[in-house]
Amino acid sequence: MATLLHLDSALYPEGSASRDVTAAFRREWESQHPDGTVIYRDLAAEPLPHLDLRGAIAGFSDPAVHTPEQAAAYALRDQLATELEQADALLIGAPMYNLTISSTLKAWLEQALIMGRTGGDNPSAAGTPAVVVASRGGSYAPGTPRDGLDFVVPYLEKVLTVGMGLEVEFIVPELTLAHADPAMAHLVDLAEASRTKALEDSVAKAKALAARFA
Amino acid sequence: MATLLHLDSALYPEGSASRDVTAAFRREWESQHPDGTVIYRDLAAEPLPHLDLRGAIAGFSDPAVHTPEQAAAYALRDQLATELEQADALLIGAPMYNLTISSTLKAWLEQALIMGRTGGDNPSAAGTPAVVVASRGGSYAPGTPRDGLDFVVPYLEKVLTVGMGLEVEFIVPELTLAHADPAMAHLVDLAEASRTKALEDSVAKAKALAARFA
Repeated sequence: MATLLHLDSALYPEGSASRDVTAAFRREWESQHPDGTVIYRDLAAEPLPHLDLRGAIAGFSDPAVHTPEQAAAYALRDQLATELEQADALLIGAPMYNLTISSTLKAWLEQALIMGRTGGDNPSAAGTPAVVVASRGGSYAPGTPRDGLDFVVPYLEKVLTVGMGLEVEFIVPELTLAHADPAMAHLVDLAEASRTKALEDSVAKAKALAARFA
Repeated sequence: MATLLHLDSALYPEGSASRDVTAAFRREWESQHPDGTVIYRDLAAEPLPHLDLRGAIAGFSDPAVHTPEQAAAYALRDQLATELEQADALLIGAPMYNLTISSTLKAWLEQALIMGRTGGDNPSAAGTPAVVVASRGGSYAPGTPRDGLDFVVPYLEKVLTVGMGLEVEFIVPELTLAHADPAMAHLVDLAEASRTKALEDSVAKAKALAARFA
């Protein structure tokens, strides 16, 4: 029975490019694994608390010696790490806010990445495939004016691979604000093409990944 | 009367390299401006809430039409933007967690950066000098094994300048885990040298900046 861990982090529940694309991936995955499990976290609607001092200390110490406050903070970290460890694949909606991932997705990373367990030399989820839907309002592609200002894809590529041992692929719907911003009206066709490709890619990647766990 | 906005984001209240260096800056600044104002936010001890949908919508709409929930969310954003606008200089402690800034500092950015006010084409705090103390446990300098894994300095350099119009300088205490990690014992001298230089730089930068607002 295949398990998918699906995280969304877009602030807007409707009209979100990243949510539309993760939903397409998930529908295809579920159609391939009707008896499988999907663990879902909407990090925007139900944000995780920021990692605090108690949780940080708890992550570096033996649970047997945790204070009650440390144990409470660690219970959440343990739950998030367990969800990651249970997953056969990870699906992350990661819209760009202020050039990087949302604070809510960063909070998930800080809570779920426990050194010596999900992070470090032999991370427990090593080899798990992860598909990241990195949507953005403009374009940050090579040669565009915003080339070099994308701190979503390069960052997640490093932290998920170097930090956690995952196998990461990206789907990048761009120019998502073209329909809403009159100054971007001339980019609507490119935006539509990017969206169509992202939706197709998500279905193709879901099919390919689901087949690995058939 | 000079005003300094001082943000810390290190999880550990004691033994924190970024806190030690921001404290040295602040002491020097205060000695130059004994009658000045320091606005202080400890983003780790008293974290800001994640930006949510109500706050996001409120930031894009006229306060006159805010719902009570939007108005409540916007009150915090307005307060943080006002603190930034009141500041003659900004001091940020930005330790590296999982290769980038903490979720708590990202939450400050998302809340404080209001498009059309503190962000956008003519940001209200444009030209304000900002000193960022970007501490990290290892070294990410060119030629080291972790070269290319630093998403603190390149990210903050872009978001604070391109996004908010600030003038940004960095102080980078590195190898801060050398004293605690036996595998880094051979790096203790380099770590000490980095710390000494960071403390000296912070005093020098505080003197230079304070003189601009004499």
